Amino acid sequence: MECGYLGPEGSYSYLALKEAFPELEPVACSSFMEILEKLENKSLAYGILPVENSTEGAVTSVMDSLLDLKEIVIQEEITYRIRHHLFNTTGQMSEVEYVISHPQALEQCRGFLRKNYPHVKLINSESTSGACHKAQQKGSKYAAVASMWAGKHNGLKVACQDIQDNRFNQTRFVLLGRGEKQPTGTDKTSIAFSFQHDQPGSLYKILKIFADYEINLSRIESRPAKQELGQYIFFIDFYGHQEEEPIPGILEVLREKTRKLYIFGSFPRSEKPL
Amino acid sequence: MECGYLGPEGSYSYLALKEAFPELEPVACSSFMEILEKLENKSLAYGILPVENSTEGAVTSVMDSLLDLKEIVIQEEITYRIRHHLFNTTGQMSEVEYVISHPQALEQCRGFLRKNYPHVKLINSESTSGACHKAQQKGSKYAAVASMWAGKHNGLKVACQDIQDNRFNQTRFVLLGRGEKQPTGTDKTSIAFSFQHDQPGSLYKILKIFADYEINLSRIESRPAKQELGQYIFFIDFYGHQEEEPIPGILEVLREKTRKLYIFGSFPRSEKPL
Repeated sequence: MECGYLGPEGSYSYLALKEAFPELEPVACSSFMEILEKLENKSLAYGILPVENSTEGAVTSVMDSLLDLKEIVIQEEITYRIRHHLFNTTGQMSEVEYVISHPQALEQCRGFLRKNYPHVKLINSESTSGACHKAQQKGSKYAAVASMWAGKHNGLKVACQDIQDNRFNQTRFVLLGRGEKQPTGTDKTSIAFSFQHDQPGSLYKILKIFADYEINLSRIESRPAKQELGQYIFFIDFYGHQEEEPIPGILEVLREKTRKLYIFGSFPRSEKPL
Repeated sequence: MECGYLGPEGSYSYLALKEAFPELEPVACSSFMEILEKLENKSLAYGILPVENSTEGAVTSVMDSLLDLKEIVIQEEITYRIRHHLFNTTGQMSEVEYVISHPQALEQCRGFLRKNYPHVKLINSESTSGACHKAQQKGSKYAAVASMWAGKHNGLKVACQDIQDNRFNQTRFVLLGRGEKQPTGTDKTSIAFSFQHDQPGSLYKILKIFADYEINLSRIESRPAKQELGQYIFFIDFYGHQEEEPIPGILEVLREKTRKLYIFGSFPRSEKPL
């Protein structure tokens, strides 16, 4: 079955998809919108989208798009750890004078590079793949910062592994598709809601319901609502499945206390990053 | 006085800075980290950084960096509306067959372009400025999607204004600098905190304090803490100044009930977007 992802091949969406769902066939799309449209018109069975901490585009627009979905729900979540490595033609850093990569990748390795290779010059490139291609052409004075996939794909050797400054640099993706997932016993439910009027304490009253039932939240985020400034939408992920007690009753209360309640689906928790 | 921003000239950080603080001298930096370092070593007086909904890099890494700051606090907030326009050499769309821009800009205008110019081909470029440059060279069959600054800067004419699908496409920036801002009567305070142990209801107990005092929150966001998986940091903005009642007492209670409390500063609320 086909799964849309934000291309090109080798993007983090691609890598997360290949690692988490090797059975799905990756289909490169040029935008998040294209993935969502192809899901809705059934030309794709699945789509993978970043929902937290992505370096490949504004996650907030993905979250806003989820509000408009019909019949499409979250099937799985994937926590993917972003890892950067140094590659060149020799597999050694001794001759390297220039390190090339996408500005965000260089930024994420800045501390490491400055500490270990203070004399190298950093050069920006359009993509990490483009950086590898250039390092391949330029020879032993150049190294590229890229994922294992991009380095290997461009025929380079690893000169240094895991050079990212933040060892917990993760992006959370969701796999979208049709049909509700059955309870597994360790699930999570993802919802959003807005209030008729934003008053001090509106959110507090909602959280009180979860606290009273001793239900853990794993994410909370407020976003200005698209159409009405000064109004907010709250995105919450909590432990439990919408078909298992006490969640159905809680959702019923939320529906009464909010202006609109969106349920994005219940799905197995990804406790550990990949 | 100099203010660091994420370059190149013409980036949204640059545009927001020029519009909100024309008295400051913009200094292009190559990364968020560079801005923060130059602030800390006093080679810059100010720095402007996106903290919400940015298309120019992961905002989460900015938020994480704020946790490490010493002496540097938020001076102002700026809500900047992202606006896209169509530019070409003629100022008319009648001959246009190709529309060029950065993928994220094209994505944000996708609905408009498909509805009004269903036959144009969309072409990705490295930046919106690069797209303008290409449109300038290629002539009347090409148009570029870009900001007013980039279009004008490349000698192009406006063919169509405000083509972004989401009219409320905003990025929130903060201006960082030294020294606490005095109360103005309509201020906001930005904080973050973590708990010793994440338990159901921990956050709820904190929000109860704000609700009891009828203090409005304008933002809430949870993020996995960098070092310890499964632990969270909560970022909250609320109405009021840390030197005005009842905020000092509330912060005192928060300090007792949390593992660590970070105060990023009190600053005038930006009620309306620019």
